[in-house]
Amino acid sequence: MEYIDLKQCILEDNEQMADQVRKLAAEKKFFLWNIMSSPGAGKTTFILSVLDRLGSGFRIGVIEGDIESTVDSQKMQTRGVPVVQLRTGGDCHLDAPMIMKALEKLPLDELDIVIIENIGNLVCPAEFDLGADLPSMLLSVPEGDDKAIKYPLMFSVCRALMVTKIDCAPYFDFDFDALARNVGALNSSLRIFPLSARTGEGMDDFCRYLAGLVSEKITRK
Amino acid sequence: MEYIDLKQCILEDNEQMADQVRKLAAEKKFFLWNIMSSPGAGKTTFILSVLDRLGSGFRIGVIEGDIESTVDSQKMQTRGVPVVQLRTGGDCHLDAPMIMKALEKLPLDELDIVIIENIGNLVCPAEFDLGADLPSMLLSVPEGDDKAIKYPLMFSVCRALMVTKIDCAPYFDFDFDALARNVGALNSSLRIFPLSARTGEGMDDFCRYLAGLVSEKITRK
Repeated sequence: MEYIDLKQCILEDNEQMADQVRKLAAEKKFFLWNIMSSPGAGKTTFILSVLDRLGSGFRIGVIEGDIESTVDSQKMQTRGVPVVQLRTGGDCHLDAPMIMKALEKLPLDELDIVIIENIGNLVCPAEFDLGADLPSMLLSVPEGDDKAIKYPLMFSVCRALMVTKIDCAPYFDFDFDALARNVGALNSSLRIFPLSARTGEGMDDFCRYLAGLVSEKITRK
Repeated sequence: MEYIDLKQCILEDNEQMADQVRKLAAEKKFFLWNIMSSPGAGKTTFILSVLDRLGSGFRIGVIEGDIESTVDSQKMQTRGVPVVQLRTGGDCHLDAPMIMKALEKLPLDELDIVIIENIGNLVCPAEFDLGADLPSMLLSVPEGDDKAIKYPLMFSVCRALMVTKIDCAPYFDFDFDALARNVGALNSSLRIFPLSARTGEGMDDFCRYLAGLVSEKITRK
């Protein structure tokens, strides 16, 4: 019997292309940052807040992933940054070949950071290595503190977890200690940043962390 | 060249099994209700609230879908209802064959309603017909009013949309009229129920609607 594990094939092909993306990012010396989350966790608002804080110090481009619509990339364009919209037309995640196609459309020689806003989905995007320097995720307070138990792969593959919408924590039963315990059991090196893109609380802390990582990479130019 | 569209094959196989599920639900005269949403939209809390309201009038069983963990089915068991936990171990959606397996474990002759709590994912579950009498979804206020534009398939396949966590609407910029417009453009027959499982607001309206649908089916016994 011939046994073809198609999923394995897809992931191996993806991994090869992710290596090509890593090579390109090393050559062109830009920092590639993948942001994942559930729908509505606040990725777009968070990215706009980062652009407002770091846009003067770093040259930033954005890759917007969506199943349909261009509403998010329109918001990014208000900040005057180069944006590439990826429309998957149904696919529930971005993969490395899509990222390579998007990178070809960006002025990479003029960029320090390329931000990827992934599809809103806490499951499938975690399976696809995009070659990013920083794979990261948002978890919003209204989603609850038990998500690491239920969606463990996402919390395992990320290096930074931004806990968003903390300004509404008083209205939800969100236990930050329980989150830290659940996350710690899966991925002890995951850095947790509680923040609110709306009020600005915690944004400076996060941006210092990000600026440190980016500077470390691009000053090796 | 031989061209095999594997996705098409998977969906066709699923559709055949969904027909078998429909046949079983007609024979055994139970009402099958599929509940989908993003992670953290409040499916479990909502179902517990429905059990508290309708549990005395109807005999209800629950199928819990999760990638990992049994935390939700443990909560269901506090209500004394029969529960089957489906662990997908990575898969991002439930399909009709899984539902058939779960139904075989439930005392169908003694049930009026079988509730399916799908995987938290606004994308892939929408592609898989489970043979349900009522395919439905939750959208929580914190997720935002633009989700129908970005995840159109989910809003297209459902018959009921429960807008949850309306008790925290004052803290979010959620435009109910915008949601209704976006939804109406996709699926004019989708019924919208604003509610809060925490405060109980809107729950009686929804439960009257559900009880009507269930009674219509099971009184044909």
